[in-house]
Amino acid sequence: MMPIDNSAARARRGRLLVSCPDQPGIVAAVSRFLFERGANIVQSQQHTTDPSGGRFFLRVEFDLEGLSDNIAPLGSEFVREVAGRYGIVFRFASAAYRQRLGVFVSKEDHALQELLWQQRSGDLPADIAIVIGNHPQLENVVAPFGIPFRHVPVAKDDKPAAEATQLKLLRDAQVDTVVLARYMQIVTSEFITPWANRLINIHHSFLPAFIGANPYAQAHERGVKLIGATAHYVTTELDAGPIIEQDVHRVDHRHTVEEMRRIGRQVERVVLARAVSWHVQDRVLVDGNKTVVFT
Amino acid sequence: MMPIDNSAARARRGRLLVSCPDQPGIVAAVSRFLFERGANIVQSQQHTTDPSGGRFFLRVEFDLEGLSDNIAPLGSEFVREVAGRYGIVFRFASAAYRQRLGVFVSKEDHALQELLWQQRSGDLPADIAIVIGNHPQLENVVAPFGIPFRHVPVAKDDKPAAEATQLKLLRDAQVDTVVLARYMQIVTSEFITPWANRLINIHHSFLPAFIGANPYAQAHERGVKLIGATAHYVTTELDAGPIIEQDVHRVDHRHTVEEMRRIGRQVERVVLARAVSWHVQDRVLVDGNKTVVFT
Amino acid sequence: MMPIDNSAARARRGRLLVSCPDQPGIVAAVSRFLFERGANIVQSQQHTTDPSGGRFFLRVEFDLEGLSDNIAPLGSEFVREVAGRYGIVFRFASAAYRQRLGVFVSKEDHALQELLWQQRSGDLPADIAIVIGNHPQLENVVAPFGIPFRHVPVAKDDKPAAEATQLKLLRDAQVDTVVLARYMQIVTSEFITPWANRLINIHHSFLPAFIGANPYAQAHERGVKLIGATAHYVTTELDAGPIIEQDVHRVDHRHTVEEMRRIGRQVERVVLARAVSWHVQDRVLVDGNKTVVFT
Amino acid sequence: MMPIDNSAARARRGRLLVSCPDQPGIVAAVSRFLFERGANIVQSQQHTTDPSGGRFFLRVEFDLEGLSDNIAPLGSEFVREVAGRYGIVFRFASAAYRQRLGVFVSKEDHALQELLWQQRSGDLPADIAIVIGNHPQLENVVAPFGIPFRHVPVAKDDKPAAEATQLKLLRDAQVDTVVLARYMQIVTSEFITPWANRLINIHHSFLPAFIGANPYAQAHERGVKLIGATAHYVTTELDAGPIIEQDVHRVDHRHTVEEMRRIGRQVERVVLARAVSWHVQDRVLVDGNKTVVFT
Repeated sequence: MMPIDNSAARARRGRLLVSCPDQPGIVAAVSRFLFERGANIVQSQQHTTDPSGGRFFLRVEFDLEGLSDNIAPLGSEFVREVAGRYGIVFRFASAAYRQRLGVFVSKEDHALQELLWQQRSGDLPADIAIVIGNHPQLENVVAPFGIPFRHVPVAKDDKPAAEATQLKLLRDAQVDTVVLARYMQIVTSEFITPWANRLINIHHSFLPAFIGANPYAQAHERGVKLIGATAHYVTTELDAGPIIEQDVHRVDHRHTVEEMRRIGRQVERVVLARAVSWHVQDRVLVDGNKTVVFT
Repeated sequence: MMPIDNSAARARRGRLLVSCPDQPGIVAAVSRFLFERGANIVQSQQHTTDPSGGRFFLRVEFDLEGLSDNIAPLGSEFVREVAGRYGIVFRFASAAYRQRLGVFVSKEDHALQELLWQQRSGDLPADIAIVIGNHPQLENVVAPFGIPFRHVPVAKDDKPAAEATQLKLLRDAQVDTVVLARYMQIVTSEFITPWANRLINIHHSFLPAFIGANPYAQAHERGVKLIGATAHYVTTELDAGPIIEQDVHRVDHRHTVEEMRRIGRQVERVVLARAVSWHVQDRVLVDGNKTVVFT
Repeated sequence: MMPIDNSAARARRGRLLVSCPDQPGIVAAVSRFLFERGANIVQSQQHTTDPSGGRFFLRVEFDLEGLSDNIAPLGSEFVREVAGRYGIVFRFASAAYRQRLGVFVSKEDHALQELLWQQRSGDLPADIAIVIGNHPQLENVVAPFGIPFRHVPVAKDDKPAAEATQLKLLRDAQVDTVVLARYMQIVTSEFITPWANRLINIHHSFLPAFIGANPYAQAHERGVKLIGATAHYVTTELDAGPIIEQDVHRVDHRHTVEEMRRIGRQVERVVLARAVSWHVQDRVLVDGNKTVVFT
Repeated sequence: MMPIDNSAARARRGRLLVSCPDQPGIVAAVSRFLFERGANIVQSQQHTTDPSGGRFFLRVEFDLEGLSDNIAPLGSEFVREVAGRYGIVFRFASAAYRQRLGVFVSKEDHALQELLWQQRSGDLPADIAIVIGNHPQLENVVAPFGIPFRHVPVAKDDKPAAEATQLKLLRDAQVDTVVLARYMQIVTSEFITPWANRLINIHHSFLPAFIGANPYAQAHERGVKLIGATAHYVTTELDAGPIIEQDVHRVDHRHTVEEMRRIGRQVERVVLARAVSWHVQDRVLVDGNKTVVFT
């Protein structure tokens, strides 16, 4: 929420993510550790699933001179002085680092468009490193943005070959997070596993309602009065991974399936963009099959 | 939407509900029929599922002097002049008639409270004729409103006996519509059938997500970011009847199941009150397993 | 709401807009008129500001073979048979006709982007005929869409000259409706008058709160918990014309003015796109300083 | 968000509210102070208006054995060890303490009803100590809840006398916070000053739109598409105090002023109840003419 207006400020700004069994003294230990190094805590959010015996999550934003050059030693010291004692899993990140996204698409362009615009306008603090389509149609949507588009067809009988190509492209483009922006293929568990918690999908329903194919047709058939969209981390169980964000829009008896799709596109792109934005700002922590989102 | 300020105006105001196969000329025939009798059409809403071969729904509000004393002959004339020709199923209703509600409850009072308040404040244009509880607790909630409360326990092994008692109470109280206001019993198909499309339930989830028991626990377990409520007509398939209204409220990782219940209560009571209000104003038409709601 | 899938169907589909003093018989007369010509009424919406002595508004969608070639004679007959008798102001329109939009912009691109994308995706049933900027920056946003962009600088001391140029461009491009898509200039009453009810602006606040400049700074200063946007027809009184659509988004103490602008951009573009979409489908009727919107 | 299920747990649970000029080390100092006394931090939220030179706000929830008997000495130690050094304004509170509310009403009961019901259901963690009406009508709404109702008429020419009576009643009832629940009188600055930041009003518009009398009539006249309500602390400037919460509901051309009032009642009561609930849980900090709300 604190906008950072220049690169000097950004180089100072860090984030610390902590997850561990809840126990007294963690906040004191973490804040003392940061204070002793001259860091100023700008924002801090915490969550415990249960004060006695639950799991504790913490996200701290702080300013520290010279941070971006000293992430690694800071981590080593944190292990020695704090993390070891409390069984903490943690990560330091520099706000100066912009995540690199790989976006997967098929033929529908709204989710992709939203990410492209939000990146260009500065609303999405990340870089789209590559767009990969199993169809070639969206190349001309991507072209004006000067971002590489790769067409990787997915043969029904040889998905592993396509995924191998995709994985190589992601590696070469040094991608941090993969976004399935209405990518109409199911990815295999071989693909999912290495990208766990870094693979975001937008599902065009309010999960867990209408899992699977054609959710708008299902919604129309059921006569619901709200349709929705769900951004979630992909796991090997279809449409069942940790939910990052959801939203809905009102419909009524007058809306055909096609109209629901049109309205749904607006919900989908907004929900996906919010989820990706939180993810690249390290605001989303995974807690089993749920998320803790520090907005 | 047109407020009616006095009983004379209310005695004039009528509603005509029409449902038939779509075909040209229906609106012209209906509006001429009303015009020739001196009626002024105040509001008119229509819906067709498909202009060629679909089903057509129409709700007309009109003012006609002396209406409330002439509903029956008006119907006979309508059969002769219009309905017969077009295969129309129809109903004339006087806005002067207030539906009588039978409200079923268990131990939770929020949905009942809302109906009681809205009736007293005039926001719900209906009368609560009787409240029936399978537990005695809510009697003192009902008492200050001067409405009869009946405790009808439901023995596990003799639900038919309880339902027979309930049906007799409803009959004696001349009830038009039954509202299950967080009534925690499943009613049998013997009960449901005669009350088809006049039996409204509030389910504490955004259906079709979380059908069945403990939807808030299910929602918490799944980690959804919105919780909802659904008002629907009860059919013999559990939680699967035509949806009248739904709404949602945002939650996040901090909300426990108990907190979700607390937030959900606010959604449930509002959704149920809206659905009942539309129903008693003849704004809800059933189209197969869906509703057409002319708000 | 009834999607029209092919050009033959579109050529049949017509709209009739009616406005007149409320009085009995209008609906009957209009529907008989249409029926006698073989038209099938597909949708009909009406509104009266007061059944006794108020103003009556009607929008009818109908299917009539050969309509698009016969709009003019249909109008003449309607005058003779119906409109004259009831003092009706009316308009027949063919759904086959796509309005031509002139979009005015300055430097911010989000509202323009939304219109461009919705047009391309088919969600906005209109054509953007020309984009006019008082700054040159957005030319490259428009370029990939193959739509003409004209840079018309507005000199502080010679706005009339600029407006003369703009008016000529609009005329040459045969524009039906002008959309101010975050155009940061006040237009003069000389410009407004000929475009009355065809000139739509998006104001970046929930009007009538925060009229005038810098509404997000005003909103931040006041500490509101929701920020909004308002699409309205432009009249000669600043930010005071008939409101077509409004929406809001939640903010809190953490949001800076810059953050509010970012969130606001999402609300603005959606609100403007909705308003323009309703307008070009003849769903918006102006009633004094208010609108009747038949969604 | 952490529900406290029994009185033992509640006796342990404390809250610390901190406000001071932002500077490095505050969080470390506060968390060390709590840790050294054996407190476990359960929740912590902070806000800075500007990391360099702004104002810093902190709310900590913690568990500490024996807290409720040791609030005073804890405060003294906090002054000595932390608050003095950082220029901190602070307050310790026990979650075991339930605030006592004085509710002012006139003739409309919806806002009062909501508070009564939420208190009884346990959703509002406070006690309504007294209800004061300038009209006698709502006595029978209050009666079933066993809460004292006092009728204090307000003579046009002697408001000071009425306010003196009100102040004495509040004092005798040991009221902590006054809630104006659709109280249709303007209170004088003599009344307001001693209750600064403990006097909550619900205004029936989305402030700052429609300040003053008859906001729904103003909203109808302006033709807005959303109507709202605003809960705020009362200051001596009319309808201009720090906003705690706002919400809106959609309306359209069909809604009369009376219909807007009916819809508005639903928004008002929900917004007021939320604001009061946050206030009594010490979640609202006043920052000049704005609020910081740690939900």
